Amino acid sequence: MSYVKGLKCKECGHRTAISPVHVCEACFGPYEVEYDYAAMAGKVTRESIARGPKSLWRYKDLLPVDKPVTGFHSGFTPLKKADRLATELGVKQLYIKDDSCNYPTYSYKERVVAVAISKAVEFGFKTVGCASTGNLANSTAAHAAQAGLKCYVMIPHDLEQGKVLGSLIFGPQMVRIRGNYDDVNRLCTEIADKYGWAIVNVNLRPYYTEGAKTYGFEIAEQYGWQLPQHTVVPTAGGTILPKIYKAYQELITLGLVEDNKPKVYSAQAAGCNPVVKAIQKGVDIIEPQKPNTIAKSIAIGNPADGYYAYQCVTKSGGYGESATDREIIDAIKLLAKTEGIWTEPAGGTTLAATIKLLQSGRIPKDESVVISITGNGLKTQEVVADELPYPRVIDAKMTEFDELLEETRRAQSEPEPALVGA
Amino acid sequence: MSYVKGLKCKECGHRTAISPVHVCEACFGPYEVEYDYAAMAGKVTRESIARGPKSLWRYKDLLPVDKPVTGFHSGFTPLKKADRLATELGVKQLYIKDDSCNYPTYSYKERVVAVAISKAVEFGFKTVGCASTGNLANSTAAHAAQAGLKCYVMIPHDLEQGKVLGSLIFGPQMVRIRGNYDDVNRLCTEIADKYGWAIVNVNLRPYYTEGAKTYGFEIAEQYGWQLPQHTVVPTAGGTILPKIYKAYQELITLGLVEDNKPKVYSAQAAGCNPVVKAIQKGVDIIEPQKPNTIAKSIAIGNPADGYYAYQCVTKSGGYGESATDREIIDAIKLLAKTEGIWTEPAGGTTLAATIKLLQSGRIPKDESVVISITGNGLKTQEVVADELPYPRVIDAKMTEFDELLEETRRAQSEPEPALVGA
Ligand SMILES: Cc1ncc(COP(=O)(O)O)c(C=O)c1O
Ligand SMILES: Cc1ncc(COP(=O)(O)O)c(C=O)c1O
Ligand SMILES: [Zn+2]
Ligand SMILES: [Zn+2]
Repeated sequence: MSYVKGLKCKECGHRTAISPVHVCEACFGPYEVEYDYAAMAGKVTRESIARGPKSLWRYKDLLPVDKPVTGFHSGFTPLKKADRLATELGVKQLYIKDDSCNYPTYSYKERVVAVAISKAVEFGFKTVGCASTGNLANSTAAHAAQAGLKCYVMIPHDLEQGKVLGSLIFGPQMVRIRGNYDDVNRLCTEIADKYGWAIVNVNLRPYYTEGAKTYGFEIAEQYGWQLPQHTVVPTAGGTILPKIYKAYQELITLGLVEDNKPKVYSAQAAGCNPVVKAIQKGVDIIEPQKPNTIAKSIAIGNPADGYYAYQCVTKSGGYGESATDREIIDAIKLLAKTEGIWTEPAGGTTLAATIKLLQSGRIPKDESVVISITGNGLKTQEVVADELPYPRVIDAKMTEFDELLEETRRAQSEPEPALVGA
Repeated sequence: MSYVKGLKCKECGHRTAISPVHVCEACFGPYEVEYDYAAMAGKVTRESIARGPKSLWRYKDLLPVDKPVTGFHSGFTPLKKADRLATELGVKQLYIKDDSCNYPTYSYKERVVAVAISKAVEFGFKTVGCASTGNLANSTAAHAAQAGLKCYVMIPHDLEQGKVLGSLIFGPQMVRIRGNYDDVNRLCTEIADKYGWAIVNVNLRPYYTEGAKTYGFEIAEQYGWQLPQHTVVPTAGGTILPKIYKAYQELITLGLVEDNKPKVYSAQAAGCNPVVKAIQKGVDIIEPQKPNTIAKSIAIGNPADGYYAYQCVTKSGGYGESATDREIIDAIKLLAKTEGIWTEPAGGTTLAATIKLLQSGRIPKDESVVISITGNGLKTQEVVADELPYPRVIDAKMTEFDELLEETRRAQSEPEPALVGA
């Protein structure tokens, strides 16, 4: 039982049947999946969703997939109440939506990949692939392995070791491309055309992007079927931000949450911030950039859906903010020390941008805020390795430990330890 | 409402009240938490557990904690039906209990740490610590950060970078000790005595170890309130194996599962296998070893609870098997390629040992088998880096891609690709 009506062009409204196409034949705009919300009324309810599996597939009625083949443990990640970070920032109600633990490759990309690969199998593809800044490659390779599909992943030549090994281990064909993500993406468009493979974020893009809605659905459900007033989201290609906004709007349409006019905010690295620049200028033209930032996973200078990210942010009354590499690293450390979560630079970017949005008053400190943490720090150890002085080595002797302890304490000019009790 | 009666010595049965002690005052045996199972009858049920949170705290009635302070998203990890791996191994019913995604630091240690740190706070400790082969340090540091406690972690000097950074990021005091884990552990026992800190796996050991039961509870619940016939478990200090067995026995005692005489098996690296050696010899004396293996997280040559691991394995009718470094790496790759799960050497050890137990007929291929995957491959990238040839770099040109593809295909002597369709 599916509520999918077909594909509809986001620009001219042209309609076509569900098939592996992504560009409108009338105007070259992007196709998006269209649903029959009226038919969902009274059938897609809080209860029907709660009865679903503990994975992103609990929202299957709002996804363009008939028969999931992967992602059975993906999604339904924690919405963590971040009380220690909230105190640090002086915010009243702060939550982390934490996809740094998303299964099985630890980024938000499981959501889009689970949907795209399930759809690829429905369409009869035997080979899948992607153009990736790293996380998408990890996820595509893992889900393809578990679904038994052949897999090609294409990445820029200079990614972090954890991202490269994190794909290789699953046995895909992997190619590094001299250049940045935008070069990789261009090549992959040609590859999809020539070889007829399912490149998940190119020719399966209408299905792929729908998967990102589950991030927004989960926030709403886990927040007790309410929407947070402010949601801060990292932007690379511009997939997840508009889809979180779409998820919120769909739940409002279905009457599953109240419409509190939720605002969404875009976070980008200062070294690659075409969407944030446009938002801050108030002009809906995304000027391409040459990325230069440690936040490699979100270093997309010419974002496919940047325009739609811009539209959602401004329509919702949100804003955009960017973070320098220094601010990104400091935010990574702050999140780790307050909440015990180790994120990658994309997450650091989002927290750093949130801090600036709070400081500038764009986000009021007494309203509810969700920070989107979308990737895992274990994959980008390079960015903190020089920041964290490697611990000293001592012999296994109490005298050496006592000495080290005393030194550390002197350095931190702390009071002497009591020798008994806790 | 607690069902805890107190502490009871595993050796002489001496009883004492709940307090931060671990060694029996009568015989120096280890204390273990004792529960009032009779009082649980009709109260701790499948339904009462199902109503609990989606974390390890759903089994709180069977844990020695009154008020959890951390671990609210820890545990309740996937029991993944491993059909592609099952086909590869010719096994009928194969499951992976996958703690490589356990929150927030990606190993089984979240279970023991969540319980120990909650108990440390109940006891009034302000400083926690651990002696660790890496994963325990990561988990202790993260949970301490999120609970706002001071934290000292002690590790052998030569751990993998991911394990070291994976603690440092959370801001603990960290000391590397010249020597192996057994040297670290000896020093930590002295530290616990002298400074009165809560060293989670030393003076809080009776509480700490109880947390490992949740791994077994979850297997049973997720397997539909049944026990698998065979459970293969890695052994380092010997905590988790006896506690999985204890979890199974508690569920049998409470009538929540049928007693199918579940067998448990110990997996160790060939370079550190004191428990497996004892099992294979059939002699209950664990002879200490000097570890030499890539499986550093389970390289404990003189395991604190090795004797109890031995006892549970032999009593249950299980067995022990060890794996060489080569076999460990091959098993890591096999798991990744078939199931899309990237584990660390401890997981590779368990899979490799399982394969040998199946080949030797110790585990029949037509019975139900659970493989315990307890750690994450992102933390031990060193062990596969040389095994996975880094992908080639090409220009972003279709001609270069075509060439590379043809080369790869020739190398794999595969048929030519069809240029159209999937
Ligand atoms: C960790 C992480 N966060 C966020 C994003 C944002 O992606 P997009 O705007 O394309 O949805 C990406 C994209 O690669 C990512 O890897
Ligand atoms: C990944 C992993 N698996 C398994 C173990 C087994 O530990 P134990 O036998 O001490 O419970 C450890 C201990 O450090 C570990 O880190
Ligand atoms: Zn159109
Ligand atoms: Zn005793």
